Amino acid sequence: MGLLRKSSRVFPGLSARRRRIWIKLGLEWARLPWQDKATFRRVKSIANEIAKKYAAVISLGIGGSYLGIRAAQDALAPPYYNEFAASRKKRPQFFCEGNNLDPDTLRALLKNLNPKKTFLIVISKSGETAETKAAFAVAEDWLKKGAGIRYGRQILAVTDPESGALRNRVNAEQKRDSLSFRGLPLLKGVGGRFSEFNMGLLHLAIIGVDIAELFAGAREMSSRCGAADLSVNPAAMYAALHTILYRKKGKAIALMMPFSETLKATADWYAQLLGESLGKKCGRKIAMNRSGEEEWLKDETNIVNVGRTPVSCRGTGDLHSIQQNNIEGENNKITTFIRVEKFRDEVKVPGKGDILAGRTFTRLICLAQEATEWALVQESRPNCTIIMPEVSPYHWGALLYFFEMATAFEGELLEVNAYDQPGVEGYKNYMYYRLGRAGMPEAISRKIENHPLIKDPKFIV
Amino acid sequence: MGLLRKSSRVFPGLSARRRRIWIKLGLEWARLPWQDKATFRRVKSIANEIAKKYAAVISLGIGGSYLGIRAAQDALAPPYYNEFAASRKKRPQFFCEGNNLDPDTLRALLKNLNPKKTFLIVISKSGETAETKAAFAVAEDWLKKGAGIRYGRQILAVTDPESGALRNRVNAEQKRDSLSFRGLPLLKGVGGRFSEFNMGLLHLAIIGVDIAELFAGAREMSSRCGAADLSVNPAAMYAALHTILYRKKGKAIALMMPFSETLKATADWYAQLLGESLGKKCGRKIAMNRSGEEEWLKDETNIVNVGRTPVSCRGTGDLHSIQQNNIEGENNKITTFIRVEKFRDEVKVPGKGDILAGRTFTRLICLAQEATEWALVQESRPNCTIIMPEVSPYHWGALLYFFEMATAFEGELLEVNAYDQPGVEGYKNYMYYRLGRAGMPEAISRKIENHPLIKDPKFIV
Repeated sequence: MGLLRKSSRVFPGLSARRRRIWIKLGLEWARLPWQDKATFRRVKSIANEIAKKYAAVISLGIGGSYLGIRAAQDALAPPYYNEFAASRKKRPQFFCEGNNLDPDTLRALLKNLNPKKTFLIVISKSGETAETKAAFAVAEDWLKKGAGIRYGRQILAVTDPESGALRNRVNAEQKRDSLSFRGLPLLKGVGGRFSEFNMGLLHLAIIGVDIAELFAGAREMSSRCGAADLSVNPAAMYAALHTILYRKKGKAIALMMPFSETLKATADWYAQLLGESLGKKCGRKIAMNRSGEEEWLKDETNIVNVGRTPVSCRGTGDLHSIQQNNIEGENNKITTFIRVEKFRDEVKVPGKGDILAGRTFTRLICLAQEATEWALVQESRPNCTIIMPEVSPYHWGALLYFFEMATAFEGELLEVNAYDQPGVEGYKNYMYYRLGRAGMPEAISRKIENHPLIKDPKFIV
Repeated sequence: MGLLRKSSRVFPGLSARRRRIWIKLGLEWARLPWQDKATFRRVKSIANEIAKKYAAVISLGIGGSYLGIRAAQDALAPPYYNEFAASRKKRPQFFCEGNNLDPDTLRALLKNLNPKKTFLIVISKSGETAETKAAFAVAEDWLKKGAGIRYGRQILAVTDPESGALRNRVNAEQKRDSLSFRGLPLLKGVGGRFSEFNMGLLHLAIIGVDIAELFAGAREMSSRCGAADLSVNPAAMYAALHTILYRKKGKAIALMMPFSETLKATADWYAQLLGESLGKKCGRKIAMNRSGEEEWLKDETNIVNVGRTPVSCRGTGDLHSIQQNNIEGENNKITTFIRVEKFRDEVKVPGKGDILAGRTFTRLICLAQEATEWALVQESRPNCTIIMPEVSPYHWGALLYFFEMATAFEGELLEVNAYDQPGVEGYKNYMYYRLGRAGMPEAISRKIENHPLIKDPKFIV
């Protein structure tokens, strides 16, 4: 109960000082659903042009800039969108690449598309992310060779509004030709995993989603998540209960299980949000930076190694997979179900006499979700259910905003900085050192040279 | 070290008695790579007929009968197989359904396919699995209405060779027309999650995979996994080390991270294999059954609630997602990397001067994997790497067989029955009770009626 009392203090009456720091360190995302109409119009007009002129779009991005788009595509585009032209209703195919360094998928995609009919979107704040940068170099080269001298008009960069390698490239190309290498801004203070309502807008408009609806849902959720009373604030309650069960009962695994095929990718998106925001080695401290502003710093004297581990799955499919372990294995998990009450389409089981005959799929999938809830309770396994009236832009916008807010609150309770990701630097150092980058600090290069991976042969079976 | 000594005793010199029970309770899967040539020929000839006559195949199945096929499709078919006819080289599109009760995806698929040009495969041992049965009823109805009186010739069932609702249907239809409702057998003693080399053959042949190669790889792995010396037996060593780290050091989460886009679905397949085989509430005991044969029974007096929780992901993409938590969050995980040394295709980063320019994607992805290994070691996080020369049928067959064998060994060390899944019964009881099935034991119906899900309104935020 200590934690629950603390929760009431922490949310949502954040002190003015904390709120200031929140905003400085990443809470800008919380204001994204209030973007102005001029932004909408610009995005929509480019999207319409792309949708009319091109047969395919390739979107290059990784992390949130891939997972957010995949989540939106699966949830809000018609199923089998890329496979069947009739599903797309004259809109272009939409492919995500640059989210891996696998040569097979990128090569196969480029082989199959016509460069004259393909539009390229590249998403990177700095332009230095290895995967996206490498894929962009390859795809640009392919466009250049296949689409003619004005190939730059088939490229748009979603990047930092002011600085960075990709922004510089945009500015240089724009000087030559204002239709070449157009840019859309990644807003300051919005991290990749919190950026769907910013970075994802062009994609949403291309596949024909009503962005205003999406934002309306997010705004409604925002007002609910601002309630001062914990018991009617869903994000605060979610964060408080999960943190209590994590800290007091060892429920260290967070299972996200939508009962909907089209929300599986949203569960994958949430896995990044939770894992990257809260999986932290160090606590945090408030300090002054050089400009005399307060900011959070990693408190290296406070090693916490904290964070629930996310697992994304989907019902009913995974009832026939990892569910056996959820029900009978270690009792170290909390399951969050998402139940969809109305699907876009309906299917009824034909026939007579059989127990399934005459039932709708919606009835069956909702019943399966309820049954799974029941089965978990029988084994004293904690779980909660998010009820989603339908997978519409409005409700999906609300869902994402809810998860973002709940994660932010959870970060407050765990007292970690939910907006950095220092743990991903290690592998980059190693990689760039081995690729011969000059100027690596000696402390790092010595660590790499002394490591058995290089000095000794590995232990091999 | 106690567990390691035990491992040496358990593997691979299983006592004759244990081996007998293994075979009885599911080790039949270990013999699948030795199937006879007549089976091959039959499967191949049906596959060729389907590939020639039809534009699309729908495969209905759930659990292993979905995950095995998805894993094979992603690993062994060309990338973007369903999206582009040129990728398929005149083979039919191949869609999986019946693995969920989501009405949207099934309806969208049927709307887009021509029933006259679609072949339907239904995979279910009993024919009673709700998802597959419901989807089959819908798809059969759709074929019947759209493909004419002989629509049964466009259906093939992979099912029990002797009994069950689906087998009975096959037998009845076959009597009328030997080309209608053809059947392929699901072999006795092979559970769904261990059935890719049985259930998956028709799919593999349809997409043009050389099954003989697949089996050769599995057979070679089988001989390695039979070695009496633990130190050269990869599956036994894998099981022993993981079990020691699990039992002695609390590494309760099993992260599978192939550095390859096309192996992500194989990691999903492994998640079922591990989670369903080893996530068990009760230990086991050996008992005589009515026929006087020994078999394993659940030992309900021995509550163990054991099993590592699987998490599937993929490099390099998820380095920008859940990896932050793997590196800095709780130290309760073991990561298994899969490194592919040669991809089917290659891409080189064009340009000059930049640190990535001139590098191949293969070099970069392998280096990223090595770098991630290094970063984990820096934080004292255990990990191991499976090196795969290439994602060919031979090596993929070997990989699957390795995982199956390692899981079987792990089950021996944990002393649970790796071949049942009693935990998935609970939700089925609830579901069928609510659908009005008669004859439910009173103990169960009382449990359901007394449960607060039904009696009280839920706690709602």
